[in-house]
Amino acid sequence: MSTEGQVIKCRAAVAWEAGKPLSIEEIEVAPPKANEVRIKILYTGVCHTDSYTLSGSDPEGVFPSVLGHEGGGIVESIGEGVTDVAVGDHVIPLYTAECKKCKFCTSGKTNLCQSVRATQGRGLMPDETSRFTCNGKPIYHYMGCSTFSEYTVVAEVSVVRVDPKPSLQKLCLLGCGVTTGFGAATKTAKVTEGSSVAIFGMGCVGLSVAQGAAFNKAGRIIAVDTNPGKEQIAREFGCTDFINPKDYDKPIQQVLVDMTDGGLDYTFDCTGNVEVMRAALEACHKGWGESTIIGVAAAGKEIATRPFQLVTGRVWRGSAFGGVKGKTDMPGLVQSYVDGKLKVDEFVTHTFDLDHINDAFDAMHGGSCIRAVLTVQQE
Amino acid sequence: MSTEGQVIKCRAAVAWEAGKPLSIEEIEVAPPKANEVRIKILYTGVCHTDSYTLSGSDPEGVFPSVLGHEGGGIVESIGEGVTDVAVGDHVIPLYTAECKKCKFCTSGKTNLCQSVRATQGRGLMPDETSRFTCNGKPIYHYMGCSTFSEYTVVAEVSVVRVDPKPSLQKLCLLGCGVTTGFGAATKTAKVTEGSSVAIFGMGCVGLSVAQGAAFNKAGRIIAVDTNPGKEQIAREFGCTDFINPKDYDKPIQQVLVDMTDGGLDYTFDCTGNVEVMRAALEACHKGWGESTIIGVAAAGKEIATRPFQLVTGRVWRGSAFGGVKGKTDMPGLVQSYVDGKLKVDEFVTHTFDLDHINDAFDAMHGGSCIRAVLTVQQE
Repeated sequence: MSTEGQVIKCRAAVAWEAGKPLSIEEIEVAPPKANEVRIKILYTGVCHTDSYTLSGSDPEGVFPSVLGHEGGGIVESIGEGVTDVAVGDHVIPLYTAECKKCKFCTSGKTNLCQSVRATQGRGLMPDETSRFTCNGKPIYHYMGCSTFSEYTVVAEVSVVRVDPKPSLQKLCLLGCGVTTGFGAATKTAKVTEGSSVAIFGMGCVGLSVAQGAAFNKAGRIIAVDTNPGKEQIAREFGCTDFINPKDYDKPIQQVLVDMTDGGLDYTFDCTGNVEVMRAALEACHKGWGESTIIGVAAAGKEIATRPFQLVTGRVWRGSAFGGVKGKTDMPGLVQSYVDGKLKVDEFVTHTFDLDHINDAFDAMHGGSCIRAVLTVQQE
Repeated sequence: MSTEGQVIKCRAAVAWEAGKPLSIEEIEVAPPKANEVRIKILYTGVCHTDSYTLSGSDPEGVFPSVLGHEGGGIVESIGEGVTDVAVGDHVIPLYTAECKKCKFCTSGKTNLCQSVRATQGRGLMPDETSRFTCNGKPIYHYMGCSTFSEYTVVAEVSVVRVDPKPSLQKLCLLGCGVTTGFGAATKTAKVTEGSSVAIFGMGCVGLSVAQGAAFNKAGRIIAVDTNPGKEQIAREFGCTDFINPKDYDKPIQQVLVDMTDGGLDYTFDCTGNVEVMRAALEACHKGWGESTIIGVAAAGKEIATRPFQLVTGRVWRGSAFGGVKGKTDMPGLVQSYVDGKLKVDEFVTHTFDLDHINDAFDAMHGGSCIRAVLTVQQE
């Protein structure tokens, strides 16, 4: 029986309030309006950003909401005017939209499409309303995705069709972590052949940066992590060195400068810790080293350094979603995965079903987890 | 009578200690050793960096010393092995050397030659000694230049020959201020045609940034200065708008974002004030705005911002000597001046002789001065 045009009752993990575990509820998902797409979510990764918002630290966090932004699913129905995807397409929701029309999309300089930014930041669809209710109470969207639900509705600009052959259990990670790290190295920093790279934080994003640096043929890739258990996987993803700041008395930036004859060509912060961001900048080589911030810092935290660090040639930049344009670039990333040039499967260290989503959050905070992927529902 | 090979007794402005006026003294200038050049200084600009060091705030400041780093003169004699310049050449000393051999010079990525950096920072020639004495007491060099003296000795890597036709009274400004600003716009930031630019601080460097931005055909160039007296000259150097932060209740970055539909493509700090540096970054357009720090901050001061500013696509960089390689690029700048494409004369608002150097410092701190140029001695 077709559900098109109908309200769908389904299960979702609802974040009722900050700091509390998620609660599995039956929710109602309204049909997509014009230029919207309703997706049957099959899989979703759990990312530190979900945890950050759930903690209450995210100034944009609104409750109650359906979190999750790293999902994969199948188009259940489409609203009026939708042309980019069709019912039955395998898709990945995009927390960084791509409208191809706004000042940002047409600039040729950034992936930060602003077409739905304002409403997305307030947990709403572009028409300022929500498609979710639970017992009649409106539930907010999250990052334009809300993948912790069996069904979700996203704007057409916030979803990309992908090759239906690979399993979405793996492909869903292209919705955030893998793309964010890989793109930061290959598209934002544009790591050059033979260059030296240091990556702070060996989670999914950091490992993806390593993969991107190796993809671009960096000469030396130094993993920096306080968890020695990350060394093996760091090397599997292309790192040539692994150092643990706890093993040194000196500041880690000094350690790195000393071991690289003056500093790194490229560094990446994948921790969200502003002190690490500073260390990453100051570990750069005078004259040309570039540091890219990827991690999300806690609200109110600021980065700082002496301006002399910049005046003497270091560059400080940031990257969101790896500088990747979801609609334009994602098919290429999927193809790289299909061709065996982009590791994705290896990130999935833990799997759970939707009922055990809080266990997935716990696992993420454990040292052995790279990515926990939830099976939201069977295909 | 040739002075070659002889100690020259001449007059110089000596900085005996921090915070005290300069003192005109007779000093002895030793002949140049191998790979050194002795220069008869004719003219020198007075720059805020001289004042900064004299104040005692510069952590690298050493006393007693001969300050000055924006000079022009004629080669009096050369040491063994010198091939880049010959006796009688018109030259400009370079506080940013160019050896064309070190890791930095050969990188193709920076102008920050390190060949003499360590000794220069300690007020010494590359052999760890000084060529200056006063009443038998050694006097330190400054920034590899020491132009507040009738004669100075510099390393061969720290001097460039220039076209002898233009007056060194004007050309000397290419030794620092004009080049620093013009290069920051054209070589470091590489301002693009039609782009929007904001420049904080309308001194010699800021006006030179404006000139560089106009040279690169920027579409809009906004001067930001708390001194309304700077508006006219700002416009003469290519600024299309002038705004005074004191005229607004809102933070200046918000004023600029509002008046430019989201922010500037390029901003430049030419003040040395770390709060202004922050404002300059935050006035940049989301997604692609780039802010370049040129000003020298007081010791211990730090820049800060929320990392979100960078993650959403702004870039923070710095520029020293405008990214200009003294030997490679200076002849082109001189040619631009000769061809009437680079304003230099217009910066010279005040002139003094060496005896009145302290008056030149006072003039520099007055609001009507762009550059005070000293006649050190007659040709």
